[in-house]
Amino acid sequence: MHNLAIIDIGSNSMKMVLAEVKKGHSFTIIDELKETVRLGEGMSIEKKLKQDRMDKAIQTLRMFKDLCDATDTEEIITVATAAVREATNRQQFLQRVKREIGLDVKVLSGIDEGYYDYWGVANSIDKEDGLIMDIGGGSIELIWMKDRKVKESTSLSFGALDITQNFDLYDSINEEQEKELEDFLHDAYQEVPWLSEMDHTALLGVGGTIKNIARIDQRKKDYPLNILHNYKMSNEAINDVYQLVKSKDLEERKNISGLSTKRADIFIGASAAVKTLIDFCDIKKLILSRKGIREGLIYHHLCRSDQPVKDVVNFSIKNIMNNFNLNQDHAYHIYKLSKSLYDQLKDLYELKPSEFNGDIDKIILVAAMMHDIGNHVNYYDHHEHSFYMLLNSGINGLSHRELLLSSYIAASHRHTKYSLHKYNLNRASLQKIINKNGPDKEAIRKTGILLEIAESLDRSMNGIVEAVQCSITDEQVNIKTIAREETELEINDALETAEGFEKLYGKKLNIY
Amino acid sequence: MHNLAIIDIGSNSMKMVLAEVKKGHSFTIIDELKETVRLGEGMSIEKKLKQDRMDKAIQTLRMFKDLCDATDTEEIITVATAAVREATNRQQFLQRVKREIGLDVKVLSGIDEGYYDYWGVANSIDKEDGLIMDIGGGSIELIWMKDRKVKESTSLSFGALDITQNFDLYDSINEEQEKELEDFLHDAYQEVPWLSEMDHTALLGVGGTIKNIARIDQRKKDYPLNILHNYKMSNEAINDVYQLVKSKDLEERKNISGLSTKRADIFIGASAAVKTLIDFCDIKKLILSRKGIREGLIYHHLCRSDQPVKDVVNFSIKNIMNNFNLNQDHAYHIYKLSKSLYDQLKDLYELKPSEFNGDIDKIILVAAMMHDIGNHVNYYDHHEHSFYMLLNSGINGLSHRELLLSSYIAASHRHTKYSLHKYNLNRASLQKIINKNGPDKEAIRKTGILLEIAESLDRSMNGIVEAVQCSITDEQVNIKTIAREETELEINDALETAEGFEKLYGKKLNIY
Repeated sequence: MHNLAIIDIGSNSMKMVLAEVKKGHSFTIIDELKETVRLGEGMSIEKKLKQDRMDKAIQTLRMFKDLCDATDTEEIITVATAAVREATNRQQFLQRVKREIGLDVKVLSGIDEGYYDYWGVANSIDKEDGLIMDIGGGSIELIWMKDRKVKESTSLSFGALDITQNFDLYDSINEEQEKELEDFLHDAYQEVPWLSEMDHTALLGVGGTIKNIARIDQRKKDYPLNILHNYKMSNEAINDVYQLVKSKDLEERKNISGLSTKRADIFIGASAAVKTLIDFCDIKKLILSRKGIREGLIYHHLCRSDQPVKDVVNFSIKNIMNNFNLNQDHAYHIYKLSKSLYDQLKDLYELKPSEFNGDIDKIILVAAMMHDIGNHVNYYDHHEHSFYMLLNSGINGLSHRELLLSSYIAASHRHTKYSLHKYNLNRASLQKIINKNGPDKEAIRKTGILLEIAESLDRSMNGIVEAVQCSITDEQVNIKTIAREETELEINDALETAEGFEKLYGKKLNIY
Repeated sequence: MHNLAIIDIGSNSMKMVLAEVKKGHSFTIIDELKETVRLGEGMSIEKKLKQDRMDKAIQTLRMFKDLCDATDTEEIITVATAAVREATNRQQFLQRVKREIGLDVKVLSGIDEGYYDYWGVANSIDKEDGLIMDIGGGSIELIWMKDRKVKESTSLSFGALDITQNFDLYDSINEEQEKELEDFLHDAYQEVPWLSEMDHTALLGVGGTIKNIARIDQRKKDYPLNILHNYKMSNEAINDVYQLVKSKDLEERKNISGLSTKRADIFIGASAAVKTLIDFCDIKKLILSRKGIREGLIYHHLCRSDQPVKDVVNFSIKNIMNNFNLNQDHAYHIYKLSKSLYDQLKDLYELKPSEFNGDIDKIILVAAMMHDIGNHVNYYDHHEHSFYMLLNSGINGLSHRELLLSSYIAASHRHTKYSLHKYNLNRASLQKIINKNGPDKEAIRKTGILLEIAESLDRSMNGIVEAVQCSITDEQVNIKTIAREETELEINDALETAEGFEKLYGKKLNIY
């Protein structure tokens, strides 16, 4: 176990993330510092980093380095993007960083930036294809991911700062400016030939601008979850945010709920770049990836491979289980038993997986593997804490709906009867994600009780019950346990679910 | 780090708790198994453990041992209480346990039981004095704790099982039975001479019966927190639960929300013992301790001292910080800075500590030391996770009200303006514990922003700002930082609270 720092010297802001690295390729973000240094400000014409911006950058790097020292972080990867890349006085700045702070900076090309964005996204979003977009202060990265590989990649040599400076959008935008800006962006996208070759695909958005767009949308809708990664937005919703943003001057924008006040001045230009791209490519859906260039650098550094992982969900489960030191053998055994019970009993569900919005197998996998994660809060009532922990653990590769269903099922692995009304989420708005009636309620409750049975059958965590064979009659469900030893206590414990089981499945439960 | 198991062979149930032991005397409960074996059942007259009960106990111990093996738990402390202690065929049972399971059992006297109960309570409840009561299946322990020492201790040689058997209370109770039972209990308490010597003191309740009484009360009241340890009840509330319980037959009792169905049959007798003691001693208040004999055994085993800890809150903070591997130096520095700010600015609070229900210094200590505990869920939005984690972490020595206030303050260490309406607790019933207006709101918000300032001043966690000196004018609060280096970035970061500070304190904030 050791710490790894990624320092990202951007044109708009400078960031450092601190990660704790564990065995395998597991890591957790443990700290983050951000300073809006605006290193790229005022360099548009001369292409020189300004003295006061460099001073502030050095001062910020010193603070970052102090945090590294305070946390015994010796492995530090420092990268710089557009502002430094394009500055004619780049060497002067890099030498100061080396001399005064002792850091070696790797200057990334635009294509490098896009490549690490892709690593961040492909390892954390369970999608085969998509258009990745990252709007920086000094450049915009566009990457076409096809079959989880980079098919095309282009870096545009302007970013949110340039747009704002060149079109003078700090305060507000008028119709004429808007027309000019749209033409400019349209032309820029036109020059990327592969953009028009793409099929209708999803936009996979990375970086602060798109995060702010998503947060504004969540606040407007009173979205019940405070989770950004994997948040989905329609093109209409993005347009609504853009209309809101451009109708306000700077002071008014600072009061938009969800918009960072430090980003308010460059936000008209930044969000116009998103809105115009969506129109240009006729994109219907945006998925936000909270993992971008910095996480991409970490994944790339740790994996030492030329390909992102194949299975995002399993990779993430393993990562989290390592981080929380969870008993993987027991969890996997519970998964095997519950999945086997589900497969044998799913004809008793009204749920039709083909009509169900979400991947029920993935949902069961995550719920079963993570059912004990709540232990990390407190052993007592840990099934309830599992709900909170799983929902907020940052597991990758699930839609919010799938994640919420998994969390409810994990929480139901004990005392199923209390589970559904207990979690004090905003109920009215929660209905937008899952419907606690019909197939969703059935998926949670019927599967939750199977998890509870599986857990009882492995009470002593030694895999004593190796498999289960179910037979279904008109009256009854019979579960035969295949075990290598006496299992009376396990079976009696599992049979405590019988009353609940009968209510849910309409059949008596027999385990032997 | 290693595991420690405590196996408790009781007269009613058998339990095993598994604890993970860390450096210092820190431990966390990581698993628990319970089986209602009723080893003491049917032995009242012959004083012999029955064959079928012994068989079930052996089978249960095998399951416990399997879990120890599966979790590499080599250190196992096995104790037995009243049923084994009083059985004439004790040796036969102990030899079987040794031969078939390989465990050495320590048979505790009633006074031993009380002593470990006292260790569990004194290390986890921040009280100087109280009457500790533990109702077991085969005995009742009464311990008078005075100045955190055992002043008197008595073990009554009957428990909930005996009462239920002897007065035939499995199903229901009639008036005649009730009168007889009350007389019997009254006489038994009368024979404990020191009970009438006590001043009016609190009952510190331990064990399953009192836990169930508390849970019934919580459900009746729609209590917003799902926390039992340190839950307070009045004598009226206990009487209400008793009236409810004794008005119902067994089948009806099984439907009482909060009452374990496995305990329903012995619950009239068990709760009568509590109710009668409270009347007998004229006790006005019960405080539940979820830590009893098993935790007492763990504390006693780990501390290797003849005295429980002096400072329950600090001991618990240290325990939790060790368990979660929190940065204690940084946390302590944040505490020092926030406490210093509070001490210098408290005249600007309307809050009068003397009239405030709770210990404001303790509240600030816990909030500051634990402010980053939410990192363990997810770095992102960790201030919000700190609310959940702190509330549910099982920290000892705070009333629920103090704990809730601490959690709100910890959650306010970033973005204070969103904090108060975000935590989706049941708001109506929450008002019973804290009032999010008046002094409580002030305590949360004004202190929360001080914690936010302290956190900014130690952004790089290196203690760069060593102290703060405040001066207050009509218009302004000036905070002078005593630092060993340049702190422009820290001060600028702290000044981002200025707008919020002015709203709360009615004065401009100046930091230099």
